[in-house]
Amino acid sequence: MRAAKYIGGGRIEVGDAEAIEPGAGEVRIRVAYNGICGTDLHIAQGHMDHRVPSPSPIGHEMSGVVEAVGAGVELAVGAPVTVMPLDWCGDCPACAAGHQHICQNLVFVGIDSPGALQELWTVPASLVVPLPEGLALDHAALVEPLAVAVHDVRRSRLAEGETAVVIGGGPIGQLIAIVARATGAHVILAEPDAARRAFAEAQGATVVDPISGDLAALVQERTGGSGADVVFEVAGTRGTALDATSHAKVRGRVVFVAIHPEPVPVDLHRVFWRELEVLGARVYEREDFERAVDLLASGAVPADALITRVVQLDETQEAFDALLSAAAMKILVDVQGARA
Amino acid sequence: MRAAKYIGGGRIEVGDAEAIEPGAGEVRIRVAYNGICGTDLHIAQGHMDHRVPSPSPIGHEMSGVVEAVGAGVELAVGAPVTVMPLDWCGDCPACAAGHQHICQNLVFVGIDSPGALQELWTVPASLVVPLPEGLALDHAALVEPLAVAVHDVRRSRLAEGETAVVIGGGPIGQLIAIVARATGAHVILAEPDAARRAFAEAQGATVVDPISGDLAALVQERTGGSGADVVFEVAGTRGTALDATSHAKVRGRVVFVAIHPEPVPVDLHRVFWRELEVLGARVYEREDFERAVDLLASGAVPADALITRVVQLDETQEAFDALLSAAAMKILVDVQGARA
Repeated sequence: MRAAKYIGGGRIEVGDAEAIEPGAGEVRIRVAYNGICGTDLHIAQGHMDHRVPSPSPIGHEMSGVVEAVGAGVELAVGAPVTVMPLDWCGDCPACAAGHQHICQNLVFVGIDSPGALQELWTVPASLVVPLPEGLALDHAALVEPLAVAVHDVRRSRLAEGETAVVIGGGPIGQLIAIVARATGAHVILAEPDAARRAFAEAQGATVVDPISGDLAALVQERTGGSGADVVFEVAGTRGTALDATSHAKVRGRVVFVAIHPEPVPVDLHRVFWRELEVLGARVYEREDFERAVDLLASGAVPADALITRVVQLDETQEAFDALLSAAAMKILVDVQGARA
Repeated sequence: MRAAKYIGGGRIEVGDAEAIEPGAGEVRIRVAYNGICGTDLHIAQGHMDHRVPSPSPIGHEMSGVVEAVGAGVELAVGAPVTVMPLDWCGDCPACAAGHQHICQNLVFVGIDSPGALQELWTVPASLVVPLPEGLALDHAALVEPLAVAVHDVRRSRLAEGETAVVIGGGPIGQLIAIVARATGAHVILAEPDAARRAFAEAQGATVVDPISGDLAALVQERTGGSGADVVFEVAGTRGTALDATSHAKVRGRVVFVAIHPEPVPVDLHRVFWRELEVLGARVYEREDFERAVDLLASGAVPADALITRVVQLDETQEAFDALLSAAAMKILVDVQGARA
């Protein structure tokens, strides 16, 4: 079979690989599609060599069908599935407290261990999430990033009728805006790129260019001077991290979704003055994954519009290059068409 | 009557003043004691001249007895009372949402309007909180700072059996540690000053010198490697703000109690990685004030030990100078002894 492997030093190589027999409690999946995410881009630039094994396939936003099962696994061969790529230890204090998704010894499958950019992928059956028959497999490759957005929105306790500010209109920001709208909230999305603003506007968000426009004035106007119930900081810049707290109402919630590898200045005086709640949100729990499946199956998510382009497995490196140079939403790798 | 007035430019002057007749819905209190707090020190150094009227008495940690009442007030003359010094508008979005204590137009009585460093103090009756007969009036001057600590602990949702880390052993840090202990929590208090460590240790906290000791190792050891349930950052330095998040468990709560006037670097990666909850906490609500009264009346708070010194009204400026130069806990001004 063929696989796209990260070989270290910021390089990806497509070549032949050995399919792994599923052992007891394991499933082998014939991968259909695999989406490329921001973390994959970091890996492919060599930023995560301390963590990512090489040579090894990466990829964790996928869909496929069950190809073979090991002993004790009850999934049917041919069933459409996706994978929730979290492999927890079950023993640490976080697991013991019921927070397995942020296990202190978490293995993120596709980052810390081999991923889905290969024709046949063998994973523990416990990670497999069945898909409904009506959900197209290309759309189903969006379940994982959508589950991130579902988790972020759930952490924020956003409720129907509330106002959410989303700072940043990349893929995760757009998905958060979509989930927030599906929750019945009003969404104000700030994004400097006109095409991304247009995308969000088509999904029902009020949009603003934070450079030429006035996000603060818009939030005040739309909330009658109280501020937003929830602010999602998804842009990941020092400026947006500092600004995020300013838009929240008294006792409002601010979710820092973007990853800030280094400490950045935060307006703790505003956190104090308005008794804000600043929340960290990381990956997802099983219920987020299942809600993401339901949302996609229901048609509430504009999946076709989110998928900018589909490339073949052999073109994986070009897809990474394209994502680095242009503001694409989501590029999928079609693993089914791989040469034998 | 006599009053200690802030006259601007970082100066306090004790002199004669006119007592104000209580109007309808108002109460005139014969002030017994008034504690000096950190905010008063800021005022007395001229840092808050943009906000504080002058010449005008300051002071908001007080006790006294009802001296006269205006029309429609049912309080008995002679009754022991304290004042919850928050005067809210009742109309803004924060008030409408039930968060009057952080009203968007809040008047903090004793900062934004005349305070208790005067023999006779006239305030709205709605701010008056009755005291039980058995509570000494010098002890009762601690109700207000204790209510701050009660509010901080309540915001953190600290529960019996949990572990709290308190960074900073000044008056508010000590009171938070005392309230946390009264809640049934284990307390680890980090403080470089030996006398303050000894004070906290006598109240049942495990103490550590964060300079020569290893707070992180102690927290790990005491929590079996999980981290603290709650961290209170009460020291207010850039270093402690950055460090605070590192001691919290997965899904732990971090309360920034100290005031950071300027944005400071926060480890948002840790907030993300452990899905922490960072909480702002400001002043108190009525139930915090009433719990503070109960805690003091019950003897759970070592009031005598917390009161480093009592000075006369004429010595107010010296008391401020002493607090700036030495690590006193709480200095009270005895307003009863003022010269006529």
